[in-house]
Amino acid sequence: MGQLIGRWIRGATLAPLALLTAGMAFAQEDDVATRLAALEEAVGGSASAYVDNSYLFLIGGLIVMFMAAGFCMLEAGLVRSKNAAMQSMKNVTLFSVAGLMFWITGYNLAYPGDATLFNGLLPTNFGPWSGGDLSVESDGGYAPASDWFFQMVFVATAASIVSGTVAERVKIWPFLIFTAVLTAFIYPVVASWEWGGGYLDSVWSFSDFAGSTLVHSTGGWAALTGAIIIGARSGKYSGKTVNPMPGSNIPLAALGTFILWFGWFGFNGASQLAAGTAADINSVSQIFANTNMAAVGGVLAAMVTTAVLYKGKLDATLIFNGAIGGLVSITAEPLAPSMGMSVLIGAVGGVLVVVSVPLLDKFKIDDVVGAIPAHLICGIWGTMIVPLTNSGASYAGQAVGVALTGVFVVIISSIIWFALKFTIGVRPSEEDEEMGLDRAELGLEAYPEFSNR
Amino acid sequence: MGQLIGRWIRGATLAPLALLTAGMAFAQEDDVATRLAALEEAVGGSASAYVDNSYLFLIGGLIVMFMAAGFCMLEAGLVRSKNAAMQSMKNVTLFSVAGLMFWITGYNLAYPGDATLFNGLLPTNFGPWSGGDLSVESDGGYAPASDWFFQMVFVATAASIVSGTVAERVKIWPFLIFTAVLTAFIYPVVASWEWGGGYLDSVWSFSDFAGSTLVHSTGGWAALTGAIIIGARSGKYSGKTVNPMPGSNIPLAALGTFILWFGWFGFNGASQLAAGTAADINSVSQIFANTNMAAVGGVLAAMVTTAVLYKGKLDATLIFNGAIGGLVSITAEPLAPSMGMSVLIGAVGGVLVVVSVPLLDKFKIDDVVGAIPAHLICGIWGTMIVPLTNSGASYAGQAVGVALTGVFVVIISSIIWFALKFTIGVRPSEEDEEMGLDRAELGLEAYPEFSNR
Amino acid sequence: MGQLIGRWIRGATLAPLALLTAGMAFAQEDDVATRLAALEEAVGGSASAYVDNSYLFLIGGLIVMFMAAGFCMLEAGLVRSKNAAMQSMKNVTLFSVAGLMFWITGYNLAYPGDATLFNGLLPTNFGPWSGGDLSVESDGGYAPASDWFFQMVFVATAASIVSGTVAERVKIWPFLIFTAVLTAFIYPVVASWEWGGGYLDSVWSFSDFAGSTLVHSTGGWAALTGAIIIGARSGKYSGKTVNPMPGSNIPLAALGTFILWFGWFGFNGASQLAAGTAADINSVSQIFANTNMAAVGGVLAAMVTTAVLYKGKLDATLIFNGAIGGLVSITAEPLAPSMGMSVLIGAVGGVLVVVSVPLLDKFKIDDVVGAIPAHLICGIWGTMIVPLTNSGASYAGQAVGVALTGVFVVIISSIIWFALKFTIGVRPSEEDEEMGLDRAELGLEAYPEFSNR
Repeated sequence: MGQLIGRWIRGATLAPLALLTAGMAFAQEDDVATRLAALEEAVGGSASAYVDNSYLFLIGGLIVMFMAAGFCMLEAGLVRSKNAAMQSMKNVTLFSVAGLMFWITGYNLAYPGDATLFNGLLPTNFGPWSGGDLSVESDGGYAPASDWFFQMVFVATAASIVSGTVAERVKIWPFLIFTAVLTAFIYPVVASWEWGGGYLDSVWSFSDFAGSTLVHSTGGWAALTGAIIIGARSGKYSGKTVNPMPGSNIPLAALGTFILWFGWFGFNGASQLAAGTAADINSVSQIFANTNMAAVGGVLAAMVTTAVLYKGKLDATLIFNGAIGGLVSITAEPLAPSMGMSVLIGAVGGVLVVVSVPLLDKFKIDDVVGAIPAHLICGIWGTMIVPLTNSGASYAGQAVGVALTGVFVVIISSIIWFALKFTIGVRPSEEDEEMGLDRAELGLEAYPEFSNR
Repeated sequence: MGQLIGRWIRGATLAPLALLTAGMAFAQEDDVATRLAALEEAVGGSASAYVDNSYLFLIGGLIVMFMAAGFCMLEAGLVRSKNAAMQSMKNVTLFSVAGLMFWITGYNLAYPGDATLFNGLLPTNFGPWSGGDLSVESDGGYAPASDWFFQMVFVATAASIVSGTVAERVKIWPFLIFTAVLTAFIYPVVASWEWGGGYLDSVWSFSDFAGSTLVHSTGGWAALTGAIIIGARSGKYSGKTVNPMPGSNIPLAALGTFILWFGWFGFNGASQLAAGTAADINSVSQIFANTNMAAVGGVLAAMVTTAVLYKGKLDATLIFNGAIGGLVSITAEPLAPSMGMSVLIGAVGGVLVVVSVPLLDKFKIDDVVGAIPAHLICGIWGTMIVPLTNSGASYAGQAVGVALTGVFVVIISSIIWFALKFTIGVRPSEEDEEMGLDRAELGLEAYPEFSNR
Repeated sequence: MGQLIGRWIRGATLAPLALLTAGMAFAQEDDVATRLAALEEAVGGSASAYVDNSYLFLIGGLIVMFMAAGFCMLEAGLVRSKNAAMQSMKNVTLFSVAGLMFWITGYNLAYPGDATLFNGLLPTNFGPWSGGDLSVESDGGYAPASDWFFQMVFVATAASIVSGTVAERVKIWPFLIFTAVLTAFIYPVVASWEWGGGYLDSVWSFSDFAGSTLVHSTGGWAALTGAIIIGARSGKYSGKTVNPMPGSNIPLAALGTFILWFGWFGFNGASQLAAGTAADINSVSQIFANTNMAAVGGVLAAMVTTAVLYKGKLDATLIFNGAIGGLVSITAEPLAPSMGMSVLIGAVGGVLVVVSVPLLDKFKIDDVVGAIPAHLICGIWGTMIVPLTNSGASYAGQAVGVALTGVFVVIISSIIWFALKFTIGVRPSEEDEEMGLDRAELGLEAYPEFSNR
């Protein structure tokens, strides 16, 4: 601002004032008109806010896209080595399926253009997305394809969540078919209710800034349904005993955690949806700070909780999941809370992660990477706490959103998982599972030269 | 700046001059003049489009720079563990050599300032690049060093391609000498023909948006020449048998694939070369979307093709290369195709990758990471299909560009590889190759604590 | 576009129309006034420079944040596998502690608002940071939280340096307590002397553009103090023999190097602190180019030096550290040097890294990852060479800054390390160290399935 005033003064000093003194000639009139028109053209043509908004989507989308690598590393690090190549490949292929399906039907279903009840289900919205004329400014104030790209990487995130939970005992083809339905239909319908201006938004003033419920819980519910229907890995539970199956590559899991943390600044920050004004970029920046504080809270709370529960021993994978739990918790409302409140919201998420893991084991729900605690449980927590800091949301409205999403995703996911189970089958044979999916389905190994103990 | 003046003139023409003809008071005149001058200063000084354009180069260049890490991970994952440290180090050092040489001669050779026949070869263009005065706007409409940075990471990409193909059996020094010639001379000359406004651009209207031919095929031809002259890894081919030498760390290869995918948005998107207007940022965004769709097509086509060819078994490394093949295929024209067409162009690339690998083996050309199919074959495919969607290009012109690049790169590369072979030698001794380059040339091991089977 | 029109209308309403009423045709006057006001609103409201500046902090900060992953990979790759999970977890938790402490006291200590002697120590500056009103432009010309975020990742960098040096033989809790003091107090006080406008800046015109001394040497001095007080890893030195303890995963170390290199463009580039004018973005771009050239110089000089010293054998880890040494060397002044000078400054850094390592061993200072040569020695070198290219700095002033930082950090660090040593203890038991911290403190292993030789 000081700079701007400085320029103003300099500008005034430099201005050819001498030209404008008489009472006065046409030339001067012309000059004013010319200069005004040129300025209007320059301001309009440089499209500063339009470019700034589009950059937000592109850069945000870019690092959310990179979260696919984060999920891949986290999951490849937390499965046993005999499934690590398959898990890596699944993450590459699921990202591809998600991109394809979101183009074919997903985007148009999720953003139907006008909001009606169950707008996401209207058959008129099916069909591939097209960005339209590149030479004109879009009415939305940003480049259409930048928005498509940004929304597409969100749907891929939902799909990545599922792959971690059901790792090590699902065949690749049924998994990808489920991914196709999730990204072509399930997620888009849920998103349409809120971000498409539909039922939850218009009737319940449901508030989910960047998708604690819409993205993370949707992925989490689909993962939970899958884990129950597919069943646990063979040997995981014998009677009341839980047999630990430790991850094969913890440094890769740490890398995955950092990549997810990195990408989350785009996930939450770019969900401000605009960056062309001071108020918008101030908000984007505050979201960056709050997002980081929530992850910090999640890590430190998970650390302290594991130290208390496990008598001084820390658990690296729970601490990594604490970061993710903290991040999911702040995703529903990363702007309104103060930084201190963001730490607390994230910290509760971190605690929830640590206490949920044994709970799942009690029910013999085998979640290989801990995605259900981090994405589903923390997604619910983050969504339900929004009204504390955002007066535009109500606890009732939030509860309706959480419940409706849960019911819908569980029902449709169950139908798909059961249909797959009773047709092409979802599990590999006992021998294949024992041998590992790398050799069974890929014909190679993740680490062929490192002997297993 | 030229653009700004253009707008000025257009603005003047369009201005409703008729409205401004009467006489007025001094105070108000002064006020108008002051405010106009301040606005002109603010609009000119804030340099919105200039900054937006430079940001495109900087951010795009940044993630293309990170592709060096992607190549490093892909290659370290696909070599045997006894060469993984060397392969990692090669990628760090080749990036350094490329940056140095492109500064010393490369940039000025590639972008000679004015276009003449064989402009890239004119001795007047030799010499280190210098960015000039930082305090003034460059005529190009972007910060000079942002362009240098962006172009530099392109040349490093070409060099990275070579290192993967000739891995595991080339000594470090001759490899780096070849890299120096490639980045100081070979690539710059090729680039000058098109992006420097030279022969291919002015005579043939050759069209290669982001470098399917200029970057990827150039790297691919150099790699192919190297693979033939250096020969296969010892033990790879015995009679008609091809002995598989599986990669030692598939999760790292997956990480490399994701990093390359991530960086490619900069590679193609920032090749729009401007982002300061709505039309430009619309185009950059569409390129992001199309680039992703081509990778999607490449992955899914490679997946289906391997499933069909190998009776249901999938090949993770071919699928990773399918992503790269799809990305290379769209690189020559990532803007003109529809998203559906982008899927198809990428899908053909994915199929080409899968079918080319056994073909190379038939000729006993040992391409360790599969760079020749992904970068050379798909680079040719991507270049040749440009006229289908871009009416400014012709099949004849494209063919001339592909052929001229191939002939030039193969001839010069052959001279260099042979010169190295008959002077300092390119291959390690049989024992060193057997022992692995890590211990032979580095005196350490990539994974000293993990026993080899 | 709709937004723009909205501003137009708002602008018209706000315009001081009263000034423009006298002896002239109303319609035309109104037109000029309206158009002027709309333009002022558009230029002011679009806040082009304000957004550009904030983007610089956000994008720069983002990739500096990712440097935490780089340190994590570098360190996880360079420790023995029995400590690799702990080292990974330490990097996640230290980043969290740094973020928390910098919010609680660090930022306000480092940037006290007005500059006084020992301003960083004034108790009035303690207290959590708050970004203020999001709806207005901040006087600084950028979003307040974007600056907080950018500065926060700097303090995390200083903390990351320490963790590498003292790896493999420090318990997690004392390490994190030290990190808390470093990031809440030590680093902020040092930063306040220069970047907070304090003693070094106002009295000595000390010049440290992006923190060769303030960040890297601060971290380096703290690491050195820790290494001495904690002592060497058990078995590292026996009499005059130095027992090599090679890193367990060299490809991960290469990845870490590339990530650090990548992030350094944000570290140095965004330290220009503004990007809203042509001069600023030109400078940011030149910093990108110079930063790269210094890394190039560091890599190649380290490579040649190891080849000479070790009779042709290269050392991958020294070459990786050469890159970091080159980058640290240019960090004190990445803008003023020419590109050739940048190569030289980086190259000296690369040589310093190689020759410092045996020197440390001579004094039995056990620096696991080589952080002291790269960050401390090269930090001093980079700071002392500033006056060669920047006439605003003096050798005396630089020496004072280096010495004052060293004395202060060493004294406070010693107090903390000794206090920890004589209370809760800093080292694990002999058996725990022998067993590895992964099993001792975490109860899991980094690579449970890969047998140790």
